Amino acid sequence: MAVIGIDLGGTKTAGLVLHQGGIAERYRMETDASSQESVMRGLLEVCIRLQESAREKGIGIDALGLGIAGFIDFERGVVTDAPNHPLRDAPVRDILAEESGLPVYVDNDANVAALAEARMGAGRGSRYLVHLTLGTGIGGGIILGGRIYRGALGAAAELGHMVIREDGPPCNCGARGCLEAMASGVAIYRRVEELAAVGHASPLVEEFLADPSAFTAAAVCRHADAGEDLAREILEGAGRHLGTGIASLVNIFNPDAVTLSGGLLGCFHHMEEAMNGSFRETAIAISRRHVRILTGTLGEDGGMLGAALLPSEGIAHV
Amino acid sequence: MAVIGIDLGGTKTAGLVLHQGGIAERYRMETDASSQESVMRGLLEVCIRLQESAREKGIGIDALGLGIAGFIDFERGVVTDAPNHPLRDAPVRDILAEESGLPVYVDNDANVAALAEARMGAGRGSRYLVHLTLGTGIGGGIILGGRIYRGALGAAAELGHMVIREDGPPCNCGARGCLEAMASGVAIYRRVEELAAVGHASPLVEEFLADPSAFTAAAVCRHADAGEDLAREILEGAGRHLGTGIASLVNIFNPDAVTLSGGLLGCFHHMEEAMNGSFRETAIAISRRHVRILTGTLGEDGGMLGAALLPSEGIAHV
Repeated sequence: MAVIGIDLGGTKTAGLVLHQGGIAERYRMETDASSQESVMRGLLEVCIRLQESAREKGIGIDALGLGIAGFIDFERGVVTDAPNHPLRDAPVRDILAEESGLPVYVDNDANVAALAEARMGAGRGSRYLVHLTLGTGIGGGIILGGRIYRGALGAAAELGHMVIREDGPPCNCGARGCLEAMASGVAIYRRVEELAAVGHASPLVEEFLADPSAFTAAAVCRHADAGEDLAREILEGAGRHLGTGIASLVNIFNPDAVTLSGGLLGCFHHMEEAMNGSFRETAIAISRRHVRILTGTLGEDGGMLGAALLPSEGIAHV
Repeated sequence: MAVIGIDLGGTKTAGLVLHQGGIAERYRMETDASSQESVMRGLLEVCIRLQESAREKGIGIDALGLGIAGFIDFERGVVTDAPNHPLRDAPVRDILAEESGLPVYVDNDANVAALAEARMGAGRGSRYLVHLTLGTGIGGGIILGGRIYRGALGAAAELGHMVIREDGPPCNCGARGCLEAMASGVAIYRRVEELAAVGHASPLVEEFLADPSAFTAAAVCRHADAGEDLAREILEGAGRHLGTGIASLVNIFNPDAVTLSGGLLGCFHHMEEAMNGSFRETAIAISRRHVRILTGTLGEDGGMLGAALLPSEGIAHV
């Protein structure tokens, strides 16, 4: 079986062909997110390019899987709402199936990343796995009994929007003190912004003030690497919040593994010890001793690989 | 099919016979929790009494289900650890099966309460249901795809030990700011205790100081019913914390229903509005609009009925 897996990102549409357990082809292009039509045209182009280059190697494509950030009605293949793309109640599966002639499966990007880590990545062999994508925001995917858990409407696994500090800082979702508001790239940015606002003087804050729009969590990591205490404290704080969130999830799911992926892993060496500390303080012994907390091994390929695994999952789910 | 369902409580061992969807017999006795043997003898006595009275009506018992507070290895029928009983790595299923000659199923009390509400109670028709038992502590049960979710080792659904306020008050589990430490009977008791310690003067605090060992959340409810502002604020605070916890669970599970049971429902009229307020502020729209938050309709029978439903669940699970 050969399957195309596509990760529809805000800036890149990236695809691969998964064939006999390995990556046979790759293709990526800019995402034109100006309209639903332009997004769909881009997806179709990546699909056709991969189909053609696979055919040259004698590989026939059997199906197409797609991962997208947003709320997905998996059974109908409809993107209900997507934060980074103009897709609203968009029948993405049916459009792509008609244009490509392939069976098409569409799911949330963090769900498919979880599936990839459980089947091929750090969590291989886990039947119960919780996955967190740590980036600007925090996404979640849940594998239960070996299958993606989607909930009643496909809106489950919003693990970044579990509250860990009531009355904490505001989150993009409108609530307060969500894990995402405490331990994501945005949370780290806001912490620096706060320190700048109160006139805190440090090389880190100076860099922020020089160009706030260009500043990211990666800069905090650089300052921490250079030995700046303030930067280290900020990342350790984020790690501590992350450990509390993971402990809650471990108490809820009693999983075999928790896997982590995303850009924030670049700062993970400054977060890990604090994360482990608060995790140990909070998780219940029986579940804590069983679970492994692992950084994902698939990196940016996780989304594409997980999308390519969707057809073999079929539409049956928990 | 006729099944005995037993709820092993800290003070009472209560059982019933579920026959053709109705309760055919009941029997209850004091729990003698002095040893594993005494607990097992009590369970067997309830089972035999129910079997005998059913036989007099011409009803033959097919199986026995049992709900116990604690960590249960469902597949092996072993109680790993129980807070209220001297059961540690106790092979409860095999002991009862040998003595009674019946197929025996043993599960966590909150899991079976969730199953009962999903099959026969307030959540009837829900395939995805989150259940909270609100009492001295907070227990949790999760129904996914119509079945009990137990996790890798049967330790899942410790929903009372989801942290909602990092650095909040200490919880009995050793962590801080768990839902149980914020919104349970114990949490309410501790809040009054705190106020008493700082010399707060009010009828509520006076009643507490007169006999702290006899004081319970029910007293706070009485003072709130009598119009005492302090008592109302305490219960509203607990309601607000509960709403935050429910919102997190709704964001995680995207369930059809959340059901609530337990002694604290006696105070629910002082908690509900605040609970709904923080729930609305925190839950994500798509999941919030879909879910119903319901008080359970089975009351104290929930545990026995859920235990009696276990055999029809079989041992397959998510």
